[in-house]
Amino acid sequence: MNRVASSSVKYLSSFKSLRCLRPFSSASKPDGPLFPHKDDFPSRHIGPRDSDIIVMLDTIGFKSLDQLTEQAVPKNIYLGKPLDIEEPTSEYELINRIRSVAEKNKIWRSYIGMGYHNCCVPHTIMRNIFENPGWTTQYTPYQPEVAQGRLEGLLNYQTMVSELTGLEVANASLLDEGTAAAEALSLCYRQNKRGKLLVSDKLHPQTISVVQTRLSSLGLQVEVVNVFESDFSNHDVAGVLFQYPDTEGNVEDFSAVAESAHANGTLVCCATDLLSLTLLRPPSEFGADIAIGTSQRLGVPLGYGGPHAGFFACNQSLVRLMPGRMIGVTRDAAGRDGYRLALQTREQHIRRDKATSNICTAQALLANMSAMFAVYHGPQGLKDIATKIHHSALVLHRGLAKSGNTLTNEIFFDTLRIEPTSDIEDIKTRAAEKQINFRYYEDGTVGVALDETVTPKDIDDIFFILGSSEKFTNLLEDPLVRAKAIYKSDFKRTSPFLTHPVFNSHHSETRIVRYMKVLENKDISLVHSMIPLGSCTMKLNSTTEMMPCSFKHFTDIHPFAPLDQSLGYHQLFAELEKDLCAITGYDKISFQPNSGAQGEYAGLRAIHCYHEARGDKHRDVCLIPVSAHGTNPASAQMAGMRVEPVRVKQNGTIDVEDLKMKAEKFRQRLSCLMITYPSTNGVFEDTVAEVCDITHKNGGQVYLDGANMNAQVGLCRPGDYGSDVSHLNLHKTFCIPHGGGGPGMGPIGVKSHLAPFLPGHPVVNPLGANSTSYGVVSAAPFGSSAILPISWAYIKMMGPRGLRKATQVAILNANYMAKVLENHFPTLFKSASSNLVAHEFIIDIREFKKTANIEAADIAKRLMDYSFHAPTMSWPVPGTLMIEPTESEDKQELDRFCEALIFIRQEIKDIEEGRMDIRVNPLKMAPHTQEQVISSTWERPYTREQAAFPAPFVKPELKVWPTVARIDDIYGDKHLVCTCPPILDQYNY
Amino acid sequence: MNRVASSSVKYLSSFKSLRCLRPFSSASKPDGPLFPHKDDFPSRHIGPRDSDIIVMLDTIGFKSLDQLTEQAVPKNIYLGKPLDIEEPTSEYELINRIRSVAEKNKIWRSYIGMGYHNCCVPHTIMRNIFENPGWTTQYTPYQPEVAQGRLEGLLNYQTMVSELTGLEVANASLLDEGTAAAEALSLCYRQNKRGKLLVSDKLHPQTISVVQTRLSSLGLQVEVVNVFESDFSNHDVAGVLFQYPDTEGNVEDFSAVAESAHANGTLVCCATDLLSLTLLRPPSEFGADIAIGTSQRLGVPLGYGGPHAGFFACNQSLVRLMPGRMIGVTRDAAGRDGYRLALQTREQHIRRDKATSNICTAQALLANMSAMFAVYHGPQGLKDIATKIHHSALVLHRGLAKSGNTLTNEIFFDTLRIEPTSDIEDIKTRAAEKQINFRYYEDGTVGVALDETVTPKDIDDIFFILGSSEKFTNLLEDPLVRAKAIYKSDFKRTSPFLTHPVFNSHHSETRIVRYMKVLENKDISLVHSMIPLGSCTMKLNSTTEMMPCSFKHFTDIHPFAPLDQSLGYHQLFAELEKDLCAITGYDKISFQPNSGAQGEYAGLRAIHCYHEARGDKHRDVCLIPVSAHGTNPASAQMAGMRVEPVRVKQNGTIDVEDLKMKAEKFRQRLSCLMITYPSTNGVFEDTVAEVCDITHKNGGQVYLDGANMNAQVGLCRPGDYGSDVSHLNLHKTFCIPHGGGGPGMGPIGVKSHLAPFLPGHPVVNPLGANSTSYGVVSAAPFGSSAILPISWAYIKMMGPRGLRKATQVAILNANYMAKVLENHFPTLFKSASSNLVAHEFIIDIREFKKTANIEAADIAKRLMDYSFHAPTMSWPVPGTLMIEPTESEDKQELDRFCEALIFIRQEIKDIEEGRMDIRVNPLKMAPHTQEQVISSTWERPYTREQAAFPAPFVKPELKVWPTVARIDDIYGDKHLVCTCPPILDQYNY
Repeated sequence: MNRVASSSVKYLSSFKSLRCLRPFSSASKPDGPLFPHKDDFPSRHIGPRDSDIIVMLDTIGFKSLDQLTEQAVPKNIYLGKPLDIEEPTSEYELINRIRSVAEKNKIWRSYIGMGYHNCCVPHTIMRNIFENPGWTTQYTPYQPEVAQGRLEGLLNYQTMVSELTGLEVANASLLDEGTAAAEALSLCYRQNKRGKLLVSDKLHPQTISVVQTRLSSLGLQVEVVNVFESDFSNHDVAGVLFQYPDTEGNVEDFSAVAESAHANGTLVCCATDLLSLTLLRPPSEFGADIAIGTSQRLGVPLGYGGPHAGFFACNQSLVRLMPGRMIGVTRDAAGRDGYRLALQTREQHIRRDKATSNICTAQALLANMSAMFAVYHGPQGLKDIATKIHHSALVLHRGLAKSGNTLTNEIFFDTLRIEPTSDIEDIKTRAAEKQINFRYYEDGTVGVALDETVTPKDIDDIFFILGSSEKFTNLLEDPLVRAKAIYKSDFKRTSPFLTHPVFNSHHSETRIVRYMKVLENKDISLVHSMIPLGSCTMKLNSTTEMMPCSFKHFTDIHPFAPLDQSLGYHQLFAELEKDLCAITGYDKISFQPNSGAQGEYAGLRAIHCYHEARGDKHRDVCLIPVSAHGTNPASAQMAGMRVEPVRVKQNGTIDVEDLKMKAEKFRQRLSCLMITYPSTNGVFEDTVAEVCDITHKNGGQVYLDGANMNAQVGLCRPGDYGSDVSHLNLHKTFCIPHGGGGPGMGPIGVKSHLAPFLPGHPVVNPLGANSTSYGVVSAAPFGSSAILPISWAYIKMMGPRGLRKATQVAILNANYMAKVLENHFPTLFKSASSNLVAHEFIIDIREFKKTANIEAADIAKRLMDYSFHAPTMSWPVPGTLMIEPTESEDKQELDRFCEALIFIRQEIKDIEEGRMDIRVNPLKMAPHTQEQVISSTWERPYTREQAAFPAPFVKPELKVWPTVARIDDIYGDKHLVCTCPPILDQYNY
Repeated sequence: MNRVASSSVKYLSSFKSLRCLRPFSSASKPDGPLFPHKDDFPSRHIGPRDSDIIVMLDTIGFKSLDQLTEQAVPKNIYLGKPLDIEEPTSEYELINRIRSVAEKNKIWRSYIGMGYHNCCVPHTIMRNIFENPGWTTQYTPYQPEVAQGRLEGLLNYQTMVSELTGLEVANASLLDEGTAAAEALSLCYRQNKRGKLLVSDKLHPQTISVVQTRLSSLGLQVEVVNVFESDFSNHDVAGVLFQYPDTEGNVEDFSAVAESAHANGTLVCCATDLLSLTLLRPPSEFGADIAIGTSQRLGVPLGYGGPHAGFFACNQSLVRLMPGRMIGVTRDAAGRDGYRLALQTREQHIRRDKATSNICTAQALLANMSAMFAVYHGPQGLKDIATKIHHSALVLHRGLAKSGNTLTNEIFFDTLRIEPTSDIEDIKTRAAEKQINFRYYEDGTVGVALDETVTPKDIDDIFFILGSSEKFTNLLEDPLVRAKAIYKSDFKRTSPFLTHPVFNSHHSETRIVRYMKVLENKDISLVHSMIPLGSCTMKLNSTTEMMPCSFKHFTDIHPFAPLDQSLGYHQLFAELEKDLCAITGYDKISFQPNSGAQGEYAGLRAIHCYHEARGDKHRDVCLIPVSAHGTNPASAQMAGMRVEPVRVKQNGTIDVEDLKMKAEKFRQRLSCLMITYPSTNGVFEDTVAEVCDITHKNGGQVYLDGANMNAQVGLCRPGDYGSDVSHLNLHKTFCIPHGGGGPGMGPIGVKSHLAPFLPGHPVVNPLGANSTSYGVVSAAPFGSSAILPISWAYIKMMGPRGLRKATQVAILNANYMAKVLENHFPTLFKSASSNLVAHEFIIDIREFKKTANIEAADIAKRLMDYSFHAPTMSWPVPGTLMIEPTESEDKQELDRFCEALIFIRQEIKDIEEGRMDIRVNPLKMAPHTQEQVISSTWERPYTREQAAFPAPFVKPELKVWPTVARIDDIYGDKHLVCTCPPILDQYNY
C-alpha cells in the first residue's frame, strides 16, 4: 500500500491544489463588471480549472496555453484568427433555441414504410438506456472484463436476430439496412469470387442504390431484376438478394429461386423485417443463407432516418466471412462463461485492406435498445404487436377492396399498394387535411405501411383519405377480413423463437429496470472514470447536448417525409454545415455517412468520381502511410482503390522522401493520399503542408482522416493547408457519445471542387432534387440525423474561444501526462521541432516483455483493478499503449490515472527485481474479481488488498469491479457461440 | 453455501416456473380477438405474471384473486361495484394527453417573488438526479449503511444552510418556508414556555397564515406587528420572527430588535433567502437564534408551488429541540466515519405526542438537488449568480427612479416595491402584452422580484411596462447604479462560506456527474431490489408517471400566477380529485397538505373547525389506539387535541369495548377517533364499521389514516363505511417515489360536511376567492402540485380493474410471503375471521433475543449482506419486522427475499445450537464491507464467502455493497456533528 514510487509524491502533493478554494474572482467585487458572465458552458466542458491549467503549464514549462499551442502546431498551418462561428450560447438559451428549431418540423402520421416505421419506444427503455449516461458513454467493448453488461445486451440482440430469421449466427449490428445489404452481397463475392450480383427490383429503392454504389466500387456487376425470372445456370452469379415482405408489401415464396440459386452455387440473401417474422415463416426455411434488414421498428425512434441498427444473420458456414462486430461466449481465467468480441481477426483493425469490411462502428446503443424491447415484450408480446398491425392491415385491405380500390397484394404483413378509385390529387389534399403521409408511387398508386402505433381511428382516416366510406368497427365482423391472414396461409410461422429465459422473465417494469441496471453497472463508462482511448476522444457528452435527442419533433419524423415537414432538421443541417465548414476550412458537408468508415468511403468515392468526371478514370492508387488506422486501407479497398503503403520513419513521421518517390512513381495513376493529422502517432508533423503539396503536384487529392480533429479545432484547418476532403467523427471531436460501440456519425467536408460528387439519394436527394447522384452510401439521406443536435449544441455553446481553448487544453492534458509519466514510461514519439506531443501520446512498454514478461494486455487488465479503462492497446505500434485524455478530464483525474500507471510500473519493477513471481503476479492475474479476492482460499504471493485496492484512491465506493476474470479470446474463437447460452444457473433470471 | 433450509427447496423449484415460456395466449391465434389489448400498463405495474398468480394463490389455498379478497376484506365493507373511473389509457396515449393538459398552462415570466423564484436548474442535475430512478426511488435513510450517498448529499445541504445563515446546525430540510416558520416559533415556545409570539408584518403573507394557523392550534397567541416597535419587557414573548430581506425586498438591520429580545429571554427567528446571503451579512451576525426559509431558488423548478425544500438552522444550544430530520456524522463498527439520521429520539415515531414536531417527511430529493446546485456552482458561482441578480435590481431601481417612480426600498437584494407613475391598469395591460407577472399590492404599488434567469431584455421589458423609457444598456455606466449596492453598505457579507472541499471540487460537468454517480451507487433503491417497508408501500414508480414532472409547462409556473395561466394544473387537480373521490368515497379533496403528517394535521383541523362551527368548541379529545403510528398523536397534539389512547387486544385488534367505554366517557368532549385501516398490524379488522359507528354515536368524527390505502383501493372505501376524513399518501399508494425521504404528498379527502373547513390560502384560495379560510397548512395553495401528475397518470393508466387487481395482488403477495415464511418466522397478527393478513404482515423474532441474542437490527443489517433493504424494524411492535411487498414485486423477488430470511433463520439456528459464536457471528457482524472481507486478516468463525455471498443468488454483479460497517447511533448522538467533517483523506475529492 505504501509503495508509491517516490517521484509520484510530488504529483500527489499537487492533488491538493485542486482541493484548495479558488480565490474569489473579481466578478463580484465592487469594482468588477456589473454582469459577470455566468452561464459559462466551456468551463463545464473543459475539465481543468484555470488555476490547474497554470500549474500544469508550469509542469511542462509553458506560461500560457497560447504559448504552448503556438509551439505545438507547425507555424505554417497555425490559424491566425478566431473561428467564424457565433458567440457562445448558454445551456438554458440553447435548449429554448433548439426547441424552436425542432418545432419547425411537423409531426404527421407517416405510413410511408420503406424500412422506417413508427413504434412505441418503451418509456422506461428511453429513460434508462437512451437518456442515461451510464449506457450512452461507454466505449466499444474491446475490454470485455468491464463491458459484460452491454456485451450481454448485444448477445441478446444477436440471439433475437438469429432466432427470428432462423439463421444460425448474427452479428452485433451494422449501420443500416442498405449497408447490410451491400455487405451481404460482398460476402457472396468473397465466398465464391463470382463477379455478378442479382438484386430484386422489389427491394427498397435506397437499398438498391447503396448496393449499386458499394458493389460497383468493387468492380462487380449489379443487375436489378425480377428474381423469379433469374437464371443462375451460368454459374456467374455470386449472390441474389430479394426482400421478404418486399417493398410493396408482398409476401412471396422464394423457395424455387433459392433452390435454383443453390443448385448453381449462388448464395441467397434475404432482406426482411424482424417484426413480420414473428408471424411469417423465417427466411432460413426457404433457403436463405443470409438475412439482413433494420431493427428500427423494435423500439427505436424514427429520428428522420437514424441512428438505427442494421442487422445481419447468416449460416454458421459463412461466419468467418461475416462483416462487423460479433459477440461470442467464451470462458474467463477462472473457467466461467464470459462474453467478448469474437473473431476480431476478420476486422479491419487487424486485416486492413484484406478485411471483410471497412466497418468498425456498430449501432450498439440502438441494438441494445431493440434487444431490450424484445426482452421487455417477450415472444408473445412481439407477436401481439405484429398481430395487431397485421389485423389492421387486413381490415384496411378488406375495406379498400369493398370500396372498389384495386389492391395488388395477395399475402401481406403490414403494407399495401393500392390503385385508388379516387383522384390522386384529391387523395393528397385529404391526406394533408388529416396530416398523414403515404408513399406515392410514380404510377399514381399509393403505398400504405401500418405500424405499432396504429389505432382504429387511423384506419378510418385512411379510408376517408382514399375515398372509402368504410369504417373500422363495421368491418370487425366481416368474415373476409381474415381470409388473407398470414396464419391461414402457407407462410404461417410454426417454429418457436425467443425461447431463452432472458426473453421470458423481464416483463414487469420493476424487473426490466433492474435488469437494465444490473447490465449498466457491469460496465465502465464515463460516469465512473476517464477512458483514455487514443484516437477515440472520449470527452464529455453533456446533458444539454443530449436533451434535444429526446425531443418529439426530432424523434418522430420519417426520413422520407416531405421537405416542408422537416424544415427544422434542414435548418439544423444548414447551421451545423456552416459551423463545420468554418472549423475545417471546407466548403461543403455531406451528413450522409453514418460512421467514420462510411465517411472515408464516401470521401474516397468523391475523389474517385471527381477524377472520373475529369476523364482520369485510371487514377486508382491510394497512398497510405503504414502507421494508418486499418480502416483507411479497408475503405480504400472498398472504394475500388489499390493501396500503396508509404513508409514511416523511425521517429514515427511520414517518410516524405518515400512519399515523394511513390507519388511520382504513380503520377499517372495517383488518386489520392490518405493521412491522419495529427498523425496516428500523436504528433503534429511539420511536413503536412508539404505532403499535401507533393500529392497535388502529382495529380492526387488529399484525404485527411478527421479522427484527430480534436487537436486541430480552432488552431488549424485541413481545408487551409491542403486537404481536399475529410470525414469528421462527430462521435469523437463533436461530443456524440460512443454508445458502447455506436452510433457514430462521419459526415465529410470537401473543398468545392469535390462538392458535386458527394452522396445523393434516390428518395430525398441531399444535393437537391435534380442533381446527379454519384452514389449513395447510407440508407438515410442525411445519415443519423437524430444525433446531429448534439454536435450543433456543442459548437453553439462553446463558441469560437471555447472550442479553441478545448483544443488547447486537450493538447495540454496530453503533454502534462506525458511529462508526469516520463520517468516511468517513455513517450514513443514527439515532434522533433517542438518536443511536444499533440492531443495523445504513446507510451512504450515493449521493454517489459523482456524484463518481466509483461505485455500491453497485462497493463490494460491491471488498470481495471484500479477502476480504469485501458488506453488503446498495441495500436498504432504493437506492444504499446496510446493515451488520449481529452480536455474534459481535469488535473485530478489525470493525476489519478498517472498514479495508477506509476503504481503499475512499481509492480513491474517488483517482477524485474525478483520480488514478485514472474507468472503469478498482480499483472498477469489481472483483473481480479470479487469471487477471487473474497475466497477462503488465497494462495498468491501478494495480498488480497494489493489485488483489489492497489492504491489509496481505489476505494470500495469508487471501485468498478470487473465481473469476469481475464477473458480467453482464443478459446472463444475456437468454440464459437454467438447466441445466448443455456442457463445452467437458475438465479440468473 | 449448501445450507438451504429444506422447506425452502420447494420454493426454489417454483423459481423455475417463472422462467418457463408463457404459453402463447389466444390473442394471436387465428380465432383470437382481432385486436389483442397490447398497451397493458397494469401488467407492467403489477409484478407477478398471471401464471405466477395461479401458483401463489394455490400456495395459500385460493382459486382466484376475487376469492382471496372476498375472504380477506370484511363483507360489510366490501365494495360490490367497479370504481367509477375511466377505462385505462396506454402509456403512449397518456403522455400525449398529459402534454395537452400541461400546455393549457401559460408560461409567463413571473417576477412575483414571495418566496418563489425562477432559476436555472442545471440540466445535468435534472437528468441525473431528478429524472433518475437511482435517486428518486430510495426510501428514507433509516438504514444508513446502504444510504451513505444521499446522507452525504443531505449533509452537504445542512452544511450549506448552516454556513450561509451563519448558524451552527441545520436540519436536512422541512416541507416549505411556511411550516419551517411555524416550527421555529413552536421551538421558541418549547424552549421557554411563553404563550405569545410576535411575527413581522413584512413576512410573506402565506408565512403569516401558516404560522397563525399552526400556533393558534397550540393555544398560543400570535401577534402580527412592526417588529421595530415591539416590546419584550413583559417577558411573555416566546419568540419573534422577521424576514431578511423582507417580503417587499427591504434589507433591514434587526440588531436592536434581537438585542432587546435576547435581553428579555425571547428567541429570535429570521426568515431569509439563502442566495441573498452570499452577499448579505448572515442572520447569525445580528443575533438570530434560528433561521428558516426555502431553498427552492437553488436549482429547483417553481413547479406551481412545490415540491421544494424548506430549511431550518439554529444555534447548537437549541439542537435537541429542533424539528425534522437531521443528518449527523458518527462512526461505524470499524471505527470509520459514517453518516446517519441523528437525534431520532426527538422524532414523532419515538416521542409520539411529546415529539418536537409531527413532521416525518423531509424534502430529501429537493434538498439534494439544492445541495448539488451548491456543489456544482461553488461559493464563487453562487456569489456570481447573486451578484448578477443584485446588479440587475440596481439597474432597475436606478432606471425607475430616474423615470420618476417612487421606490420604497433603501437597501435591497432582488426585490423592489414601486409606486408607479403610470396608471396601474395600463401597467397591467402592458404586462399582459409582454407576458410578465408582477406582484400587485392592494394599494396600487407594484412588486418586482428578479431572479437568476433575468436578462437585459427582461429589464427593458419591465421599464416598458412601468412606463419608463430607460434602457438597460444606457444605465450601465450610470455611477448611481451601484450607490445602493449591498457591498457598499454595512450589510456586506465578510464571512466566508462553503469553504469545504466538496463545494470547491466538482465544477466541471464530468466531475459533477461522477460525484452524483458515486453517491447514487452507495444506496439501495428500487432499481436494485425490493424494499419491503411495512406501511410505506415501496411500489413501482414508472417512467411514464414520472415523465410529466419534467414538462416545462408544469415546472416553470409560479404558484401565485393568475388562474387563467394555470388552467392545465386546475384541470389536473379537478380530474385527480374526481378519481380520488371515486376511490375513497369522499366528496372533496384538498391538495394543500404536502405530506402525510400535514394531511393528518389538516384533517384534524377540519374536524376541529367543524365542531367549533357547530358550537362544539369544547370537543378536544382524540382517541387513538396505542398501536397507531407515532405521527397520529403528534399531529393530534399539534392540532390542539388531547390524546386518549385506546387499548389494543392481544391479537392486535382495537379493543372495541375499551373504545366504547372511552367514547362514552368523553361523550361531551369527544372530537374524533384516529384509526388506520387496515390496522398498523396489517390486519383487516372486522369491526371497523362498528368502530366508526360508536364514534359517531358519541358525537365524534372519524379520521382514517390513509397510510394503508394500498390494501383498499377498489375493494372498500373509507367514505362508505364511516370515515369522515383521510389523508392519502400519494407517495405510497399512488406512486409518487419516496425520493430518499421526500417529497411526499398528503392530500385529504373529506365527506361533504367537512368540506368548508378544508385549508384556504391568503393569496390563491383553493376554496374559491371569497370563501372563508379556516386556516392554511402549507405555503403553497395546492401543496406540491408538480408531482401530482404522477398519481393522475397512475390512476388513468390502471383504470378500475387495474387498480383493483393491484390491490388484490398486494394482498396476495403479503399472504404468499407469510405462508412461505410460516415455518421459519411466525406471523404475529392475522384476521381472526379470515386467517389472512392484509397487504403487510409482522414476523415475530422476539424469541431469538433469548435463544441467540439476535434482535431485529441484526436481521435488518444481515439482510444488507443479501443486498436487500430491511423491512420496517420494531414497529408497530418492538422487536419485530413488518414486511410490505406491494403488488409491483414479482414472485421471483418475493421468493428471493423469503429465501434470504430463511437462510438467516438457519444462521440463527447455528447460534442457538452452538455451532456459531454468540458474539462473533454473521448477524452480529453484519453488514460486511468490502474492506472487511478483502482484508488479509480474517479471524472470524465463518468464511468470507458466508459473510459476503451468503446465498447462491447473492452474486457479485447483483451485490449492493454497504459502504460502511454497522453504524453506531449512540456515539453520533453523543458527539453531534451535523456539517461536513474536515477532509483528512486527500483522495475523497
